Amino acid sequence: MTNDIPDIVIGRLPIYLRELNSLQREGEKTNTSSHDLGRRLGISSAQIRKDLSHFGEFGKQGTGYNIAYLVEQISEILHLTKEWNVAIVGAGYLGHALAHYNGFQHRGFRIVCVFDSDPKKIGQQMGDFVVQSVVELETTIQQAHIAIAILAVPIDVAQEITNRLVEVGVKALLSYVPVQLMVPEDVKVSYSDPVVQMQRMTYYLNP
Amino acid sequence: MTNDIPDIVIGRLPIYLRELNSLQREGEKTNTSSHDLGRRLGISSAQIRKDLSHFGEFGKQGTGYNIAYLVEQISEILHLTKEWNVAIVGAGYLGHALAHYNGFQHRGFRIVCVFDSDPKKIGQQMGDFVVQSVVELETTIQQAHIAIAILAVPIDVAQEITNRLVEVGVKALLSYVPVQLMVPEDVKVSYSDPVVQMQRMTYYLNP
Repeated sequence: MTNDIPDIVIGRLPIYLRELNSLQREGEKTNTSSHDLGRRLGISSAQIRKDLSHFGEFGKQGTGYNIAYLVEQISEILHLTKEWNVAIVGAGYLGHALAHYNGFQHRGFRIVCVFDSDPKKIGQQMGDFVVQSVVELETTIQQAHIAIAILAVPIDVAQEITNRLVEVGVKALLSYVPVQLMVPEDVKVSYSDPVVQMQRMTYYLNP
Repeated sequence: MTNDIPDIVIGRLPIYLRELNSLQREGEKTNTSSHDLGRRLGISSAQIRKDLSHFGEFGKQGTGYNIAYLVEQISEILHLTKEWNVAIVGAGYLGHALAHYNGFQHRGFRIVCVFDSDPKKIGQQMGDFVVQSVVELETTIQQAHIAIAILAVPIDVAQEITNRLVEVGVKALLSYVPVQLMVPEDVKVSYSDPVVQMQRMTYYLNP
């Protein structure tokens, strides 16, 4: 049943989950509706109902969705009921910011190691981590059963590091490097490039 | 003509542009083809031809696209022929990383100011910038004709800062804050949330 759900639908589930979590934190109510959620997210309620209907029947006519139950269900769908160990590769300014980011907790991810190749950085404390040499990349990734890595390395080593990560079993990469990476078909890559995001917006602006 | 082009098409243009720029840097050839570009990007050549055809006739059967010409054309379409002044709001770890990022140059954007509300940060040097007080936000944004801002502030002040930015004419926001922002219809927001990106990938992984 979950096989041919469009990736665009999958892409909205984390947004729903984030908003549901924030409703939970607000703590004002135990139920929500597709209308309420849609209004908060700027998405139509029909879209939300259609997206969720791919996975089952989560709400009741009239009373809507129980927030805690829907959080649980979406977490299960996205495989977030256990925490994923994540490696950060690259301890420059961005790696540093990521290592200090406290937004991973309680959302399914735990940063467990940070790598760099710079002898001046290796051994240094960075947030809760001691920067490890990239020489230890393979051993550490395998020992810690890491399937997800965040790439914050210089552009010229990005593909080589990607190859090494994939070789030891990494199946998902979040890359902050502004270059297209080559990976096998069973490996997912998600890119984050502020310039690409801004260029998409300037199209709509008056120059 | 450019009015009803799907946003998903617009979203691929920066990716094409980035790859064309990297072809330029490699400097091996002056022309490329939709096949060549598609292979490098993991996108079908038909998709690339269809995307570009929304904007005109850029290539020739047989010889393909002149790289420099296509760069120029896409830059014009995306309004990147002049540089956009950009403000960074929030001088925490992430704002720090963004202020030091050298990937904005030559891609249409120039960071011109960094704001924070922390007295310990205000007045400090950060990369090429001196962190300004958020009290000066309105004056500076207007004087420097800033239409684009990058948001790297704590979650609880994100909406308030957004309102202030919009009030003084900011039309595009790149937000690193993990919360949905309310903006008027003529303002664009693009979100960057590493957790949302990773949650979209874990759906496809074996838990």
